[in-house]
Amino acid sequence: MTAFPAATETGDMMKTAIYPGSFDPCTNGHLDIITRSAKIFDTLIVAVLTNNNKAPAFSVEERIDFLQRVTAGMENVRIAAFSGLLADFARTRGADVIIKGLRAVSDFEYEFQMALTNSKLNPGAETLFMTTSTDNMYLSSSVVREIAMYGGALDGMVPEEIQTKIYDKLRR
Amino acid sequence: MTAFPAATETGDMMKTAIYPGSFDPCTNGHLDIITRSAKIFDTLIVAVLTNNNKAPAFSVEERIDFLQRVTAGMENVRIAAFSGLLADFARTRGADVIIKGLRAVSDFEYEFQMALTNSKLNPGAETLFMTTSTDNMYLSSSVVREIAMYGGALDGMVPEEIQTKIYDKLRR
Amino acid sequence: MTAFPAATETGDMMKTAIYPGSFDPCTNGHLDIITRSAKIFDTLIVAVLTNNNKAPAFSVEERIDFLQRVTAGMENVRIAAFSGLLADFARTRGADVIIKGLRAVSDFEYEFQMALTNSKLNPGAETLFMTTSTDNMYLSSSVVREIAMYGGALDGMVPEEIQTKIYDKLRR
Amino acid sequence: MTAFPAATETGDMMKTAIYPGSFDPCTNGHLDIITRSAKIFDTLIVAVLTNNNKAPAFSVEERIDFLQRVTAGMENVRIAAFSGLLADFARTRGADVIIKGLRAVSDFEYEFQMALTNSKLNPGAETLFMTTSTDNMYLSSSVVREIAMYGGALDGMVPEEIQTKIYDKLRR
Amino acid sequence: MTAFPAATETGDMMKTAIYPGSFDPCTNGHLDIITRSAKIFDTLIVAVLTNNNKAPAFSVEERIDFLQRVTAGMENVRIAAFSGLLADFARTRGADVIIKGLRAVSDFEYEFQMALTNSKLNPGAETLFMTTSTDNMYLSSSVVREIAMYGGALDGMVPEEIQTKIYDKLRR
Amino acid sequence: MTAFPAATETGDMMKTAIYPGSFDPCTNGHLDIITRSAKIFDTLIVAVLTNNNKAPAFSVEERIDFLQRVTAGMENVRIAAFSGLLADFARTRGADVIIKGLRAVSDFEYEFQMALTNSKLNPGAETLFMTTSTDNMYLSSSVVREIAMYGGALDGMVPEEIQTKIYDKLRR
Repeated sequence: MTAFPAATETGDMMKTAIYPGSFDPCTNGHLDIITRSAKIFDTLIVAVLTNNNKAPAFSVEERIDFLQRVTAGMENVRIAAFSGLLADFARTRGADVIIKGLRAVSDFEYEFQMALTNSKLNPGAETLFMTTSTDNMYLSSSVVREIAMYGGALDGMVPEEIQTKIYDKLRR
Repeated sequence: MTAFPAATETGDMMKTAIYPGSFDPCTNGHLDIITRSAKIFDTLIVAVLTNNNKAPAFSVEERIDFLQRVTAGMENVRIAAFSGLLADFARTRGADVIIKGLRAVSDFEYEFQMALTNSKLNPGAETLFMTTSTDNMYLSSSVVREIAMYGGALDGMVPEEIQTKIYDKLRR
Repeated sequence: MTAFPAATETGDMMKTAIYPGSFDPCTNGHLDIITRSAKIFDTLIVAVLTNNNKAPAFSVEERIDFLQRVTAGMENVRIAAFSGLLADFARTRGADVIIKGLRAVSDFEYEFQMALTNSKLNPGAETLFMTTSTDNMYLSSSVVREIAMYGGALDGMVPEEIQTKIYDKLRR
Repeated sequence: MTAFPAATETGDMMKTAIYPGSFDPCTNGHLDIITRSAKIFDTLIVAVLTNNNKAPAFSVEERIDFLQRVTAGMENVRIAAFSGLLADFARTRGADVIIKGLRAVSDFEYEFQMALTNSKLNPGAETLFMTTSTDNMYLSSSVVREIAMYGGALDGMVPEEIQTKIYDKLRR
Repeated sequence: MTAFPAATETGDMMKTAIYPGSFDPCTNGHLDIITRSAKIFDTLIVAVLTNNNKAPAFSVEERIDFLQRVTAGMENVRIAAFSGLLADFARTRGADVIIKGLRAVSDFEYEFQMALTNSKLNPGAETLFMTTSTDNMYLSSSVVREIAMYGGALDGMVPEEIQTKIYDKLRR
Repeated sequence: MTAFPAATETGDMMKTAIYPGSFDPCTNGHLDIITRSAKIFDTLIVAVLTNNNKAPAFSVEERIDFLQRVTAGMENVRIAAFSGLLADFARTRGADVIIKGLRAVSDFEYEFQMALTNSKLNPGAETLFMTTSTDNMYLSSSVVREIAMYGGALDGMVPEEIQTKIYDKLRR
């Protein structure tokens, strides 16, 4: 806290943020949110949802591996898997903030509902929204999967180091 | 930065956020955003826009006075006036974050555009959005002004300590 | 109440609805909402807002005259002027319901906010929304004024009996 | 009808409304709509959709049982199951009104389409929308199921008398 | 190009548009877009998507047959099946334009994302949106299937010549 | 019509599009729509609205001058002023298409209404929407005016050749 010298309180202001998602697979849009959030908060936990209601295209291990590759060198970023309620996971990790990226209105509606729900379940974790940069506004994991399936170009959509792995898994 | 011992970098992570608005007058919705933001960032600057394109109902002095009264006791909150571009003001104050409250989709559309504009003008200040709490979702300064003008009840809409001042100015 | 014989309670269920607006001028879209609402509620009060913040194109007297002409023969429809807060007017008239027509999302956002505000100011009057019929979905008083100003055809947009009066006032 | 003495017409104005849904399970949001609608219309039929396209979490019997418990004591509320087209069900029951609750824009888009479709299939039944109260704005049956599945707190989300039954069925 | 006499360039301006969709089955809304687009572009290719991710109600052959029946006599309209990426199909056919019909905001959000994606994959094909006419605004293939399933009236929803075939396939 | 040899019909398919707006001033977003539209239609008329309801920042002459400078070299683009109804102007010019750029949902709502109105007033001119490219998504004439007023950087927002003229007029 600038201008608030009490040393013991400084630790208090160390802020942990969680960026949850399916990351199936992670895209340049996700990477953009990660990079920008990591500049604002002391620790950023990228949390890969593993609830098995929807069959993902990539296993949890693959999704975590992709995230670790693309965030290598970001010192305050951690990758973690979680199942259950996000509000509970945030409590366990002592997170102060939940970060969500927004592309468009339909995103917003759903995310707004989730933010209100999570704030009821865990008032200690504040949801903050960040706009996707314009370059990535059209991007989503499902668009990436569709393009990869038919061998379309993924340049500018997913980080280079994971493009081959995505084609290998999805291309028909 | 938890687990990153380099002392000189700790100062780096002191984060300043700006919460800009007209606050004409401030409402319980604004106060809710201020309270929640002040818990997350080291310093919160509530910035009262004084561009004189639109004639405000309350003078800058009145609007600042209201904000100072309702934030009395919040140690890391500063009230400031600004004119010109928000992106420039954020740069001058060394702000890392611009906070915006969101009530609904029409808010979001406009704020989204502003966030992209400000990020182009000042890439160093990240816009973060916070959902209005459900209790305040219907609230806006213009709703408050309309109700005060016709003598409707302002309870639960603006902090008690400024209700009389608002009636005095606006009631017909 | 069907199947609830207590005679004294029957009066209780006589329902009065208010349909508020500027009606500057009334359109076929307004007339459609009036016709459909009048079939559902015992009394429908079409309430013409006369707050003089925005300069209307037609005087209150003209707007009321237009509404009386186009609702002639609808026995349970009343036309009234009001100023001040809608919630107060609804209370004075003992209204149980406020009717609003919806055309599109931007309508909805604003109306949603108003509905929550009015429900706080007068919990006894419930706001109910009705979709505009598809034929009238593009219609608004401002579209009608713009077209009339430049002499465009108003057929299908406003009832025939008031078309000439609208041209007389607005055509440049 | 105030001021319309003809006794034979009074029966005409007895209004029946239908509130259709999956209610899988019913939430405080549903209960709020039921309570408010029952004050406006003579009879309110809560209609549980049983088309078996989507596998519900609760059986029709369970969903009806929940609704009966939480509406016990509301004299003009009936619970019924229906399959097929809502427009046909409304015709069979002589309903004048279809009630829908709205939380947000994405709700609204879909409901708007349904209202226009139903009005084409059955012009005699008018769809009216009611805003969800702010307390329940984040609530949906799917949010409740997700929370129950992971043992989160359901207080304020579903009526107390059915909480245990919901946990018993869904908790993993 | 009017007023640009160079004959060789005239061929350049022959424009081919693609109208892609599932057409499961085609509706009057689709037919409206086809009719209006065929007046603007030299050739219109109605492209039936055959990616087998989602089980369609009608086979590709049936869907193409329906489209051929209802577009009989439209000389510059072609019906074609395609799988894979729309951007690739547009390139193969030398299409300059992709036509999409819009009904509402939720349509728009998704279509906006698709337009940006396709423009990245194939900058040579411009996506143009056309509003659905008000008569067809509530219509969608899924609404038609739902109504047909329960024997509701399809008049005004699908062209007469295919109504019986739709009932034969879907009616329970 | 490709593959339809009748020479007399070829002229029929010469298509004129109108791109209407205030262009107060024109931005890179406008220029992007102009460039892309000019590739699709034989003639593109950029039509500057001169209805004097709203006081523009730039005169009609200035706005036309800016457009002429930035479209110099685009052979099938014409700049024209118009007042009155767009539908009438389109009829006078024999336009087949009205082009509109879309940035976001709030744009869309208004434009949708205008498209339906114009189609009623002039069924011969079809409104087609084009998405703004992601680079220009945040841009609007009012954002440009605001930035210029306070001396912010306009690079990437308006074509270089008109930046000085904009500053000269607007900078305080």
